[in-house]
Amino acid sequence: MASIRIRGAKEEDCGEILKLIRELAEYEKLSDQVKISEEALRADGFGENPFYHCLVAEILPAPGELQGPCIVGYGLYYFIYSTWKGRNVYLEDIYVMPEHRGQGIGSKIIKKVAEVALDKGCSQFRLAVLDWNQKAIDLYKALGAQDLTEAEGWHSFRFEEEVMKKLAGR
Amino acid sequence: MASIRIRGAKEEDCGEILKLIRELAEYEKLSDQVKISEEALRADGFGENPFYHCLVAEILPAPGELQGPCIVGYGLYYFIYSTWKGRNVYLEDIYVMPEHRGQGIGSKIIKKVAEVALDKGCSQFRLAVLDWNQKAIDLYKALGAQDLTEAEGWHSFRFEEEVMKKLAGR
Repeated sequence: MASIRIRGAKEEDCGEILKLIRELAEYEKLSDQVKISEEALRADGFGENPFYHCLVAEILPAPGELQGPCIVGYGLYYFIYSTWKGRNVYLEDIYVMPEHRGQGIGSKIIKKVAEVALDKGCSQFRLAVLDWNQKAIDLYKALGAQDLTEAEGWHSFRFEEEVMKKLAGR
Repeated sequence: MASIRIRGAKEEDCGEILKLIRELAEYEKLSDQVKISEEALRADGFGENPFYHCLVAEILPAPGELQGPCIVGYGLYYFIYSTWKGRNVYLEDIYVMPEHRGQGIGSKIIKKVAEVALDKGCSQFRLAVLDWNQKAIDLYKALGAQDLTEAEGWHSFRFEEEVMKKLAGR
């Protein structure tokens, strides 16, 4: 079985990460919403005060194989703030390429995020999932996450840019 | 009618803000979950790289009134990151004291967050609301927000600290 490594993303991984971001959006049936560029990902994640952090999952070549490690998944997170509990982590995206699923790579990414979050003093770890994505829901629940929309009735709302401009009187 | 001002919170407002955080949690019927202290709010919001930003709504005294301005609401937000759109803003809490509702203070806070967000290059503005809080839902929808849980099926999930420790093998 192939050996998997989860590591922090480097700036030069941004091209690969963008490909996976697009694959994830296609899987979520929302790919028309992806407007980000590789340049923005590089600038926003690898400056002095990065807006996000990213983990990549890569398959390591077996001894004697000629090709290098190959990125097959990622988890992109940032730190948020709860007025109940203080510093928290939010996993914005988690994705594993279809042909590499079923090997526990998603769980490995989630476990690594939990480690990083605890090291940074976070006491909660949030994420969002589409209600038809039963495999992901089953995984998060199996790992111990609670569905807050189901349990407490939380709904996510969003204002889009055009609405924000109207609100700001611009 | 009283004059309302929305301004950025100062460190010395943290005691007042904490009182309102507790009131909001009581309103949400989740007050047992508030573990934050005034000291944590001061340290986390007013250091060099603040974890959050906060607006307060205050009622200004009429000319000749002896008492100073009085904080009656707040909005606490931070910057998040979308792999579709880049930098975004998240309004974690918004609260107006019951006796000061119906004067448009909540809308004023939301409009101010939209202004700040646009100034910082954000193209989306997210928040969450409990499904029984119809007044808040009506307000957000009237201001142009979309209910993503309803429209696209997004559910919020959360891992608590004990689960995170298990995931991290601690």
